[in-house]
Amino acid sequence: MSSEIQSDLRADVAQLFVVRASGHALDNQRNYPAWELTNKELQTLLGQGVGGVLLLGGTSTELFHRCRTLRQWAANPLLLCADVEEGMGQRFHGGTWLVPPMALARLHTSDPEEAKILAERYGRCTGYQARSCGLNWILAPVCDVNTNPDNPVINVRAWGQDPETVSALASAFHQGLSLEGVLSCAKHFPGHGATGVDSHLDLPILDQNIHELEDCELIPFRSAIAAGVSSVMTGHLLFPNIDPDNPTTTSRELITNLLRQKLGFEGLIVTDALVMKAITQIYGSGEAAVMAFDAGVDLILMPKEPGIAIEALTEALLSGQVPMQRLDEALERRRNALATLETSSSPQNERFFINRSFELERSEDQALSEDLVRSTLEIHQLKPIQPAQKGLNFLRIDGVFPCTILSNSAPAISLPEKVGYRTVISHPMGVNPWQDDTSSPLALDRLGDGPLILQLFIRGNPFRGKRDCQEPWQAVLQQLQREQRLAGLVVYGSPYIWEQLLKVLDSSIPAVYSPGQMPEAQKQALSSLLEPVQDPESSQHVMINEFTN
Amino acid sequence: MSSEIQSDLRADVAQLFVVRASGHALDNQRNYPAWELTNKELQTLLGQGVGGVLLLGGTSTELFHRCRTLRQWAANPLLLCADVEEGMGQRFHGGTWLVPPMALARLHTSDPEEAKILAERYGRCTGYQARSCGLNWILAPVCDVNTNPDNPVINVRAWGQDPETVSALASAFHQGLSLEGVLSCAKHFPGHGATGVDSHLDLPILDQNIHELEDCELIPFRSAIAAGVSSVMTGHLLFPNIDPDNPTTTSRELITNLLRQKLGFEGLIVTDALVMKAITQIYGSGEAAVMAFDAGVDLILMPKEPGIAIEALTEALLSGQVPMQRLDEALERRRNALATLETSSSPQNERFFINRSFELERSEDQALSEDLVRSTLEIHQLKPIQPAQKGLNFLRIDGVFPCTILSNSAPAISLPEKVGYRTVISHPMGVNPWQDDTSSPLALDRLGDGPLILQLFIRGNPFRGKRDCQEPWQAVLQQLQREQRLAGLVVYGSPYIWEQLLKVLDSSIPAVYSPGQMPEAQKQALSSLLEPVQDPESSQHVMINEFTN
Repeated sequence: MSSEIQSDLRADVAQLFVVRASGHALDNQRNYPAWELTNKELQTLLGQGVGGVLLLGGTSTELFHRCRTLRQWAANPLLLCADVEEGMGQRFHGGTWLVPPMALARLHTSDPEEAKILAERYGRCTGYQARSCGLNWILAPVCDVNTNPDNPVINVRAWGQDPETVSALASAFHQGLSLEGVLSCAKHFPGHGATGVDSHLDLPILDQNIHELEDCELIPFRSAIAAGVSSVMTGHLLFPNIDPDNPTTTSRELITNLLRQKLGFEGLIVTDALVMKAITQIYGSGEAAVMAFDAGVDLILMPKEPGIAIEALTEALLSGQVPMQRLDEALERRRNALATLETSSSPQNERFFINRSFELERSEDQALSEDLVRSTLEIHQLKPIQPAQKGLNFLRIDGVFPCTILSNSAPAISLPEKVGYRTVISHPMGVNPWQDDTSSPLALDRLGDGPLILQLFIRGNPFRGKRDCQEPWQAVLQQLQREQRLAGLVVYGSPYIWEQLLKVLDSSIPAVYSPGQMPEAQKQALSSLLEPVQDPESSQHVMINEFTN
Repeated sequence: MSSEIQSDLRADVAQLFVVRASGHALDNQRNYPAWELTNKELQTLLGQGVGGVLLLGGTSTELFHRCRTLRQWAANPLLLCADVEEGMGQRFHGGTWLVPPMALARLHTSDPEEAKILAERYGRCTGYQARSCGLNWILAPVCDVNTNPDNPVINVRAWGQDPETVSALASAFHQGLSLEGVLSCAKHFPGHGATGVDSHLDLPILDQNIHELEDCELIPFRSAIAAGVSSVMTGHLLFPNIDPDNPTTTSRELITNLLRQKLGFEGLIVTDALVMKAITQIYGSGEAAVMAFDAGVDLILMPKEPGIAIEALTEALLSGQVPMQRLDEALERRRNALATLETSSSPQNERFFINRSFELERSEDQALSEDLVRSTLEIHQLKPIQPAQKGLNFLRIDGVFPCTILSNSAPAISLPEKVGYRTVISHPMGVNPWQDDTSSPLALDRLGDGPLILQLFIRGNPFRGKRDCQEPWQAVLQQLQREQRLAGLVVYGSPYIWEQLLKVLDSSIPAVYSPGQMPEAQKQALSSLLEPVQDPESSQHVMINEFTN
């Protein structure tokens, strides 16, 4: 075979790869230089035909200009994607930040129609803003059923804890994205909801057999496929009762036999990021890409060394190790997916930045963000928190570098300060607030005197392992109540923690739960606790929540 | 007078105002919504003739696009300025971040020629990148002589502690800016270096008479004027022995009689921000603007309510309270300043972003940043810090929301972790690390066991008042040495703190000082302490510092 044909083949293969880049323009702005390619590497790879870029970091303005630059560098039409599961504001400053999907699952039990309408608006808001910034592929909805409350990585990212709720809401979200002309992605096939292990850190091993998957995990994927989801992402998950040798991402049994044939999915199948430890601890860069492709995926996401992976797959096709027909099929699916964008009736939303109009966030987006927080707040007690001469506002957060949920002017800090509560923050790099006493675990002498508002930002987030489950918040609550120090409680994020705490919470303590952690959630949660409700008629959100609680 | 003439007059007056905006594109991205105008307000004011914008926040990419948008909204050529005193990277991510000016003052004592060359390169680097991002006016050099080591707001921002050093280096910096075609600003006239009060928080009262000012504070301003500095900024400082009734910003004696007439300055005189408490606690928005203008300034910076201030000054001119001639003079000075930019021989550096070349930071900029850190490090002891099984890396920082100097991958965190030192961070919102024992003030039981690396990021920063002086670091050092816990010491920022600590530091302790706090300073400081110096010949930076120390 001539080297020209080989070079054409390599360019075709390259189209199936999605590499990772920072959303910032400059190399020295990259937050994760180990994972994010340099501009020189990007320009070279895109010039050689690489067909997709996963973007993370940067503001929405930067993202818009970044996408334009990447398109200029590319030989082919690009798939430009991001892990945006909770509104563009979750990842790109300036976009709208929405409560996590699990919030709507709770609403779905009381008002399924309203929850579905909100899930579709959620998808439209995300799709409109993603498209406005230049993205054309959103790596959502999460279709996992969060059956394990201690799941360290899915948790509130899931649209529910039972397959019917997840099916209904994930499909409504997909529908919203689709109406805005953006590709969607159902993940993480065949289901990451039962794991107690984070696949960023290790390979989860799950004991379900195929019948058990059919009865639970596969239901939302079937539903998303029926609704026309554009792509499905494979999880790095080992099911020994189905394929004892290969995690899903490299399992022909799970990808080709189950997803492609039995479930009849005709769209794009994409791997989860191949740089995750679940994969890199087993395979090299080239090996992982070849095995995943041979097992039946179409697109390879974030291989550790893209050049080596492209080369290895090219070789595997040339040698006949992988049939050439697989390449043609994958390329055709990619073309088809891009073609749906071009024929989509949705407008080209890039006009936003071109016209330099004021805001990416439309008034309807802001209203959605507020509605979602309001309709998913749960208020335990309407007695307001009392102003204090010298009170403590004790916040627990996952980390400070960075901390996207807080700033000096964040409501979680500024609102308690207005009524006399000084902020003290507990985070993994901070001075230890714990003492060696299981019934009084919080070292109160390190925090100071006075009534204390406890605000817990805790939800299960990637890369944290089991850290969050180990903090004894139930015992802290009992300690604070025993010492008559607890002025109020706010839980942001995990409904499981909230429910645990409710079991020991004294009925006289003002307390509120929001699934969201962003400033809007802080504002509404604290306002509901700090402002005396003088006229219930005029306080709509409290009324709604008395009703839904 | 017809309303048309009045409207023309108002548009002329508006040209003399500089308002504040976020460097971000979107209203919901503003970090300080109380001070930063909305896009709607900006568009209105610029359309009415407002002549300048002070930008803060945003990355360099965002700033570039922001400046283009603001120019499109403006009726007149705009002055676009920023408080960039330590390289563009100090304010705008993606630019080069340089050690504070005081670093070069220390080098100036041993090698004045090298220090002057570096100060000019410092100005060129700042000017090139500022211009590349769309700015045309840099609010530097600080010409204050930092005669008070406890100065809470100037401190290491000054180019020295004696008037000759400040004169030499500030003028060299100005020269660098000027060569890149960017306007400069000598501040804070007649000198903010002796204050013990931060004028952001209160009005400093200084007892110098005119002869004392002539012998010290005025020398760098005279020198900057002789070097052709484009503008001079007035400090909000009360000198009762010179003008008992008015702080400098509204003092005809200090502005017109001293700066304009006696010092013969013909360029633009601009107020410091009128939103600062030193002014707002005395005057209303309109009053402050009228009094400053009447006293002799040309440009009004950041009035609290721009519309009201413009109206008040227009009225004062119409009524004859302020002579019309003052308006003509100020407008002419503004035109002249802008004209020097247009005829400047420097290239239009905006080509950088237009061409989408890779980096704002050129290799020479990066080299300068490294050179400046290297030539200003002070190493106390060359014995390396020993790796530990279970060591503590204890960092003291000004605050976490935001913390521009640290990230999870910052050298101050990652390098000690590599050799076994776990990070614990002390900051004002953290759990209290102090106990009530003046000889052992640090509550070590809250931090854990093992050898401890102490890293102090402390330098005097605006808005902090006297907070930084009150922490007993000398006693902590003695405590740690007494308990044989101190593995190493790094001071980033204040040379005064470093010198205090040297007085009690045991000669066997590895220790280093850098005037800079940015990642490059962290990298070099810690590398010098953590890497055993096996071959002194190959370790250039240690050799240089043995020499300069």
